[in-house]
Amino acid sequence: MAFDAIETPFGKVDSIIGGSAIYVAYAASNFVKPVQQVSIVGYDFPAEEMAELKRRGVQLEGVEVIPDKKSFFWSGRYHEDMNTRDTLITDLNVLADFDPKLPDSYQGAEFLMLGNLQPKIQLSVIKQLKKRPKLIVMDTMNFWMEVAMPDLEETLKQVDLLMVNDAEARQLTGQFSLVKAAKTILQMGPKYLIIKKGEHGALLFHGDDVFFAPALPLEEVFDPTGAGDTFAGGFIGHLAKTGDISFENMKRAIIVGSAMASFCVEKFGANRLKEVSMKDISRRIEQFKELVSFEIELV
Amino acid sequence: MAFDAIETPFGKVDSIIGGSAIYVAYAASNFVKPVQQVSIVGYDFPAEEMAELKRRGVQLEGVEVIPDKKSFFWSGRYHEDMNTRDTLITDLNVLADFDPKLPDSYQGAEFLMLGNLQPKIQLSVIKQLKKRPKLIVMDTMNFWMEVAMPDLEETLKQVDLLMVNDAEARQLTGQFSLVKAAKTILQMGPKYLIIKKGEHGALLFHGDDVFFAPALPLEEVFDPTGAGDTFAGGFIGHLAKTGDISFENMKRAIIVGSAMASFCVEKFGANRLKEVSMKDISRRIEQFKELVSFEIELV
Repeated sequence: MAFDAIETPFGKVDSIIGGSAIYVAYAASNFVKPVQQVSIVGYDFPAEEMAELKRRGVQLEGVEVIPDKKSFFWSGRYHEDMNTRDTLITDLNVLADFDPKLPDSYQGAEFLMLGNLQPKIQLSVIKQLKKRPKLIVMDTMNFWMEVAMPDLEETLKQVDLLMVNDAEARQLTGQFSLVKAAKTILQMGPKYLIIKKGEHGALLFHGDDVFFAPALPLEEVFDPTGAGDTFAGGFIGHLAKTGDISFENMKRAIIVGSAMASFCVEKFGANRLKEVSMKDISRRIEQFKELVSFEIELV
Repeated sequence: MAFDAIETPFGKVDSIIGGSAIYVAYAASNFVKPVQQVSIVGYDFPAEEMAELKRRGVQLEGVEVIPDKKSFFWSGRYHEDMNTRDTLITDLNVLADFDPKLPDSYQGAEFLMLGNLQPKIQLSVIKQLKKRPKLIVMDTMNFWMEVAMPDLEETLKQVDLLMVNDAEARQLTGQFSLVKAAKTILQMGPKYLIIKKGEHGALLFHGDDVFFAPALPLEEVFDPTGAGDTFAGGFIGHLAKTGDISFENMKRAIIVGSAMASFCVEKFGANRLKEVSMKDISRRIEQFKELVSFEIELV
């Protein structure tokens, strides 16, 4: 949970609520309540944002508030193509000493989504859960492959599903072919792998099975910040709602995640996610069905 | 119809049969016969290749043979990522004076596929047909946008479907968003547009309708040369076989084209295309169905 300053070809915001946990919570809370948030913020994190999260069924007992420090701050500028961005500022602030303590009330959680963070911290959350969740999903990034690979490998052994983008899958394995990269990653711990390809959709791998979900072709991507986390939130939200972790249901969860991500990019930060109704979401999922459905008789 | 020298990270060939018309013919002849070829070759084009094409139902009356000149020759080297390549040599040879004359026996053709070439030559073929075909499909490339834009615009007005890659769609319109680029192109003449995104699949646009077909995630892309032309051949081959140019059937045709392209990249040149059976093709199409099919109940 953080503040972001974002500049895109379409405009800029100097300070907007962001961070993985925010996007995951806003997306997932459409499908399942409560969402039990684990994060850390500073004195500057707005009370009205906390209240809004609570209204949506997000529990905040696991969100530590540090009275004399500022919240994590990230500032970035997107290039014309919206696929690449420069990080301008990263102020860790409260995140520098983050050592999450899981509240007792969170014990028994069936679905665990580990947002991108030090693999050691991700692992510590897993270890604090007395009963292993039904599904542990983990996000990570290239930075941890560079500075904390042994920790990352250890954490990977404890998760069920890894979610990375194509460049990260390649870096993690040294394989250019995503199919080969997937095979390698599926031997590192996770039984499931999602490779996110941004505007080019996402791939789900499990054993020899593979599923592909497109991204919705959008006229305008206003701000891609948080799209990956929103995807993750929609994905695990759908799984938690249905309690079904079969490959078939994961396909649906990916479509739900893609639909949520397609909303996320329409406005700055999580602004669009705060507005969308279940009716909007259903309509968007219908668009995904139309986008890829075809009937073909085999010769 | 040409000779190519190709170098990929996996190997090299000094001289292999290639050219748009070869790939289109090999792909389309699986679905429809005859394929009436219009092209030009030199004295060096092998008789056994001509015989093989004839065996597959490709008519060669429209293929001019120049006795004192060499066939078109292209040489290129692919980078490690297989998505980008350097052209090393382009010897136009016979192609420098190509002025196709449509044989009378080709009159009445219902489906016309215009491979990438000077827009003026593409237009001349259209004009030589006394009865307008049911569907005219056109491929082009960035080069013609740079050196022959007025001709390209004129030709575009005469075709039903344009097939370009994402970079070409952007260059043709000056729009980065493919959705916006599509809208612009659909006002330039074609009623249908296919944007090929290589390993990221292909999009079909028509009015407000859009369909997305993935590329098959492949363990290894051995040689991408001709994949786009093979896609085109499978696409128009399926349409010609069924005689149905509805949007629904174009979706199927795109899947067929994608399946054919997925074979093409498995070996150098058109080698793999020469081997595959209808059974192989059906099995591959089945993989595409599995790759994207999902069932979801709307909330």
